[in-house]
Amino acid sequence: MKMHDVKILIINPNSSQKMTEAIQQTAMAYADGDFIVHTISTPGAPEFIDYYMDSAQAAPGMLKLFLENESQYDGFVVACHSDPNLDLLKEITTKPVVGIGESSMKLATMLGHSFSVVSTAVHSIPNKQAMIRNYHLEAYNASVRAPKNVQESLSDEEIFLDTAKAALDEDLAEVIVLGCAGLSGLDKNLSRELEVPVLDSIVCALMIVTGLVKAGLSISKKRRYSGTPA
Amino acid sequence: MKMHDVKILIINPNSSQKMTEAIQQTAMAYADGDFIVHTISTPGAPEFIDYYMDSAQAAPGMLKLFLENESQYDGFVVACHSDPNLDLLKEITTKPVVGIGESSMKLATMLGHSFSVVSTAVHSIPNKQAMIRNYHLEAYNASVRAPKNVQESLSDEEIFLDTAKAALDEDLAEVIVLGCAGLSGLDKNLSRELEVPVLDSIVCALMIVTGLVKAGLSISKKRRYSGTPA
Amino acid sequence: MKMHDVKILIINPNSSQKMTEAIQQTAMAYADGDFIVHTISTPGAPEFIDYYMDSAQAAPGMLKLFLENESQYDGFVVACHSDPNLDLLKEITTKPVVGIGESSMKLATMLGHSFSVVSTAVHSIPNKQAMIRNYHLEAYNASVRAPKNVQESLSDEEIFLDTAKAALDEDLAEVIVLGCAGLSGLDKNLSRELEVPVLDSIVCALMIVTGLVKAGLSISKKRRYSGTPA
Amino acid sequence: MKMHDVKILIINPNSSQKMTEAIQQTAMAYADGDFIVHTISTPGAPEFIDYYMDSAQAAPGMLKLFLENESQYDGFVVACHSDPNLDLLKEITTKPVVGIGESSMKLATMLGHSFSVVSTAVHSIPNKQAMIRNYHLEAYNASVRAPKNVQESLSDEEIFLDTAKAALDEDLAEVIVLGCAGLSGLDKNLSRELEVPVLDSIVCALMIVTGLVKAGLSISKKRRYSGTPA
Amino acid sequence: MKMHDVKILIINPNSSQKMTEAIQQTAMAYADGDFIVHTISTPGAPEFIDYYMDSAQAAPGMLKLFLENESQYDGFVVACHSDPNLDLLKEITTKPVVGIGESSMKLATMLGHSFSVVSTAVHSIPNKQAMIRNYHLEAYNASVRAPKNVQESLSDEEIFLDTAKAALDEDLAEVIVLGCAGLSGLDKNLSRELEVPVLDSIVCALMIVTGLVKAGLSISKKRRYSGTPA
Amino acid sequence: MKMHDVKILIINPNSSQKMTEAIQQTAMAYADGDFIVHTISTPGAPEFIDYYMDSAQAAPGMLKLFLENESQYDGFVVACHSDPNLDLLKEITTKPVVGIGESSMKLATMLGHSFSVVSTAVHSIPNKQAMIRNYHLEAYNASVRAPKNVQESLSDEEIFLDTAKAALDEDLAEVIVLGCAGLSGLDKNLSRELEVPVLDSIVCALMIVTGLVKAGLSISKKRRYSGTPA
Repeated sequence: MKMHDVKILIINPNSSQKMTEAIQQTAMAYADGDFIVHTISTPGAPEFIDYYMDSAQAAPGMLKLFLENESQYDGFVVACHSDPNLDLLKEITTKPVVGIGESSMKLATMLGHSFSVVSTAVHSIPNKQAMIRNYHLEAYNASVRAPKNVQESLSDEEIFLDTAKAALDEDLAEVIVLGCAGLSGLDKNLSRELEVPVLDSIVCALMIVTGLVKAGLSISKKRRYSGTPA
Repeated sequence: MKMHDVKILIINPNSSQKMTEAIQQTAMAYADGDFIVHTISTPGAPEFIDYYMDSAQAAPGMLKLFLENESQYDGFVVACHSDPNLDLLKEITTKPVVGIGESSMKLATMLGHSFSVVSTAVHSIPNKQAMIRNYHLEAYNASVRAPKNVQESLSDEEIFLDTAKAALDEDLAEVIVLGCAGLSGLDKNLSRELEVPVLDSIVCALMIVTGLVKAGLSISKKRRYSGTPA
Repeated sequence: MKMHDVKILIINPNSSQKMTEAIQQTAMAYADGDFIVHTISTPGAPEFIDYYMDSAQAAPGMLKLFLENESQYDGFVVACHSDPNLDLLKEITTKPVVGIGESSMKLATMLGHSFSVVSTAVHSIPNKQAMIRNYHLEAYNASVRAPKNVQESLSDEEIFLDTAKAALDEDLAEVIVLGCAGLSGLDKNLSRELEVPVLDSIVCALMIVTGLVKAGLSISKKRRYSGTPA
Repeated sequence: MKMHDVKILIINPNSSQKMTEAIQQTAMAYADGDFIVHTISTPGAPEFIDYYMDSAQAAPGMLKLFLENESQYDGFVVACHSDPNLDLLKEITTKPVVGIGESSMKLATMLGHSFSVVSTAVHSIPNKQAMIRNYHLEAYNASVRAPKNVQESLSDEEIFLDTAKAALDEDLAEVIVLGCAGLSGLDKNLSRELEVPVLDSIVCALMIVTGLVKAGLSISKKRRYSGTPA
Repeated sequence: MKMHDVKILIINPNSSQKMTEAIQQTAMAYADGDFIVHTISTPGAPEFIDYYMDSAQAAPGMLKLFLENESQYDGFVVACHSDPNLDLLKEITTKPVVGIGESSMKLATMLGHSFSVVSTAVHSIPNKQAMIRNYHLEAYNASVRAPKNVQESLSDEEIFLDTAKAALDEDLAEVIVLGCAGLSGLDKNLSRELEVPVLDSIVCALMIVTGLVKAGLSISKKRRYSGTPA
Repeated sequence: MKMHDVKILIINPNSSQKMTEAIQQTAMAYADGDFIVHTISTPGAPEFIDYYMDSAQAAPGMLKLFLENESQYDGFVVACHSDPNLDLLKEITTKPVVGIGESSMKLATMLGHSFSVVSTAVHSIPNKQAMIRNYHLEAYNASVRAPKNVQESLSDEEIFLDTAKAALDEDLAEVIVLGCAGLSGLDKNLSRELEVPVLDSIVCALMIVTGLVKAGLSISKKRRYSGTPA
């Protein structure tokens, strides 16, 4: 399949229009005209996906969006780094669907000895660790870090630069994964400062999903994701 | 970066011109005109990479090829499923380089609960298992299988179909990885017969490396691969 | 706290009234008058929880039931062996809540060298394995088995007796866990036939949750389950 | 079986009458009249179980006590957090026997993302880690900590409060396990101060063993614990 | 230290004089006059160490033997493949002490991709597996096998040849460990038949312990084995 | 076989004559006349093996040396702690060959609860960790440490004493492995200061290889190392 025929839908599992726009901007910068990509917010979902409750509340809207758009697109991205309801979408479709959490962390393992995830909040570290374990990535993971005792005057870039630096120096990470769709766009500057690859998870998911579409590959319907396609 | 500007070099670590042509054919079918890709054989390497000795004998030629071609290409693929000398190449360059073994097995983890590798010879199973462990993929790996007691009258497709079927039924695999560059091209027919994704590892490596090039990402030069670039 | 003051609510995540009654019967037999226990079905949920979709469809009903009943009970049980939406309930309450999957498999580790789960369908084996990994129980798990090629004339007891026997003999299991609330009640007969402990997961969950209530213990609200209590 | 008919014997593997009394007090507070529980010291054992030698010296006395009392009780608890000679007792009986180490740490996994053990002495940390590995609990264990450089003026509660606080803040534990029978009774105050579950391992063992008795469950006599019952 | 000054004591943890003589014969054949080695039986121990009870009953005798002989020897071997009371002896001495189980299995990992243990009885497989895990050797272990349904007319050599052959062919083992001191002496013939290394665990322990003595190395007295030397 | 007939060749994979002499000195001190041992440098190899490139450049020389000397010696040692090209040598011979990295770290596991490796440079820590994982030793490894911010005035002994002390105190190591052939000779003084076993990896390899020769054992030629012997 030709790349310029590939059509990707990015589902932002939250309802923040601002974040949806930022994601779409990152996606278009990566696409650079090579393929078609659209991002949509999830109606009825919270403004931010943080807790199990948020993920549960996003499910009906994500499902509705997915079913309404399935026939018009070739591949799908779930654009929250905790990959909410990703197994559910993998189950109901015969088209490729990838999460930005899974894509970014698995790609990170190909670029260095170990990676660290920088995340937005300390309380989310255990959930991120549980996810890393579900993806069998513990041995590649140097650490999950979130900013602590942040000075109000600092910019996002300064805050996460410090967090990532600690991961490189103290945890011996060699690659940084930005652990939230909301951090999209920080990658280039952080990478220049830190002199290591810094992965924007939206970009990583697009790399994988466009490749899968082009290669004609999709989720196996044998056993684990064998629920009847919608 | 625009996809049609991406130039990839595939290094076939063995000296078989026939296998090099087959790899190039697979690569061009996947590229479909979207990016530029060339495949070259390794001078001085054995006809087939099977043992540690083969890998050692391929090293000088691979290194020479790489250094001669590094400036003309944006990304590199090592096209033998045991990823011979991949760490060496990752160490000496600041451009992206991927192995078909690593790429195919890590991609397989995103398409189903577990994958099996079908390989050419029983004696290579332990080496493949050691490699799976080095990539921290044990928990995703259902099995490594190679044909046993093969009837001479059977075609390659029939032989590996049987091997893959056993992996799906007895080992509960959900995705099949073709564990040798020499099996390239069997994926479509096997996938149609087995009704699960069957991964051609050349295609998988191209998906990853073209994405990395397009995204401007490469190997981390922090610690593990910090040897002075050539 | 005195045991006869303990009040437990069992939430059957599916909508099958028949299964709810069977669960309640098992629960009352175990309670034997020592504590109070009620079982309720989940409105709007499917008749059987099998796929990710079933679990997602059960979530709103389970949540509603839980919030309506939280103040009247001291502890809660999720009575489907795949523990659907258990993390969600652990997050929103300060009272103890346990799943029958987690309870039965963790208790099994205290009664022998390894356990096998007998499950209802082959397609659910990978999901059960994923769950076993999430609970870090791989090293204790001998196998997950489901009946294959079942003769129509056989009773449930005969079918699962054969399945469990194979787990004991071929996989060297020493304890059997009945991997579905729908198998509740088979434990005594199977245990007598097999001469090993056979765990009814409803009973296991009740052992744990009544103990937690009596001891005044509950889910930690530090980080992972720190979402605001309802 | 009715709870008020359940009779439990707690074997304190050391010979300290003072510790036996403290254990019995904790046990009776938990029992609250619901079941019968007695605690006895081990004749011929050291005053404190710390080293392999202590455990070996306790074995003959524990065995003698067990055999003398086996017929009068329904279930048994080994009340030292290193579970000395627990496998031996599991082997020789058809009645349920649990250790306070195993019970408390496995229960902790159901109440939060990870647990830390606070122990009495730094030199015992490796032994506790070996035990955690034997119970396959590494992935749930945030740390084992013991007080260092303790000021003489501090009370036990103050000392272990500091140790536990460090586990919560630095190791990201969410649940605390008191790793010595001698710490029994500190749980309520520590829990109130720390705002996380703090597990008294005597209580945890009683929860499990009374449940097993009530449910008619016991150690599997298949293979690992198949030595002839006394 | 000169090898001909090295004096080793082998403690056979059981009371079988016949097995003690067989062990001494194997030891002397390996020593071939290079060092001094004596084997003694444990008074008060059972005829065969099989269960936890056997190990506990051997402890006082082993301890007594060890303390009586400690000053006359340079190094010590515990000559039962389940390494009974090995941690106890490591704790109480500043001289090197090794077990034949630990020595043989760890040495096996240096001679091939994976090893299988052939053991005397099926009921001991879980205990052997627990031991393999305690020594962190799971990833190197292909299987533990014991003869099943043995024909009475077969010799020991024939029986264990069949068992080992199955391990090589079905479990893909590359090295065989004889998992019982009672199998000492079968190694040469089995190795010739099977064309793989077959390890006699008495020999393996002697290799390690004589080397440790010669190098002036012993058990670390930091923390885990820090109990006061006798 | 008599020890005084054993002839060992130590291959120093680098071309530093000074290091070769230091290795030979350590080897002769250990041998103490009991067996014959020679050390040779690798022609064409770099002065120091640090990166993947160094290892690749050493391969042809190591191979040449090995083949020229194979018939005159009974056993072989690769004397660089990263075990460069060890698998290659294991593949091409039927005589025993061991690496100083593998030997020292596996022996360390028999002397204490956990070991730390002290290494020469921070950038080599990930490679050492990868090696530890390849040998399945993660669970025994407390840490890999290298000196940081070293004062110029300090001696090697002072520098590595500090590094090792930190491993014992902060990482709870109980045994120290000197992680470079270049550190050979520091073991006695460090051990006296630290009061724990400090392993000189040259000595460890000699213990193992002489034992293997004496016992008539060698690398399994089944599958993984089944390449045709030279």
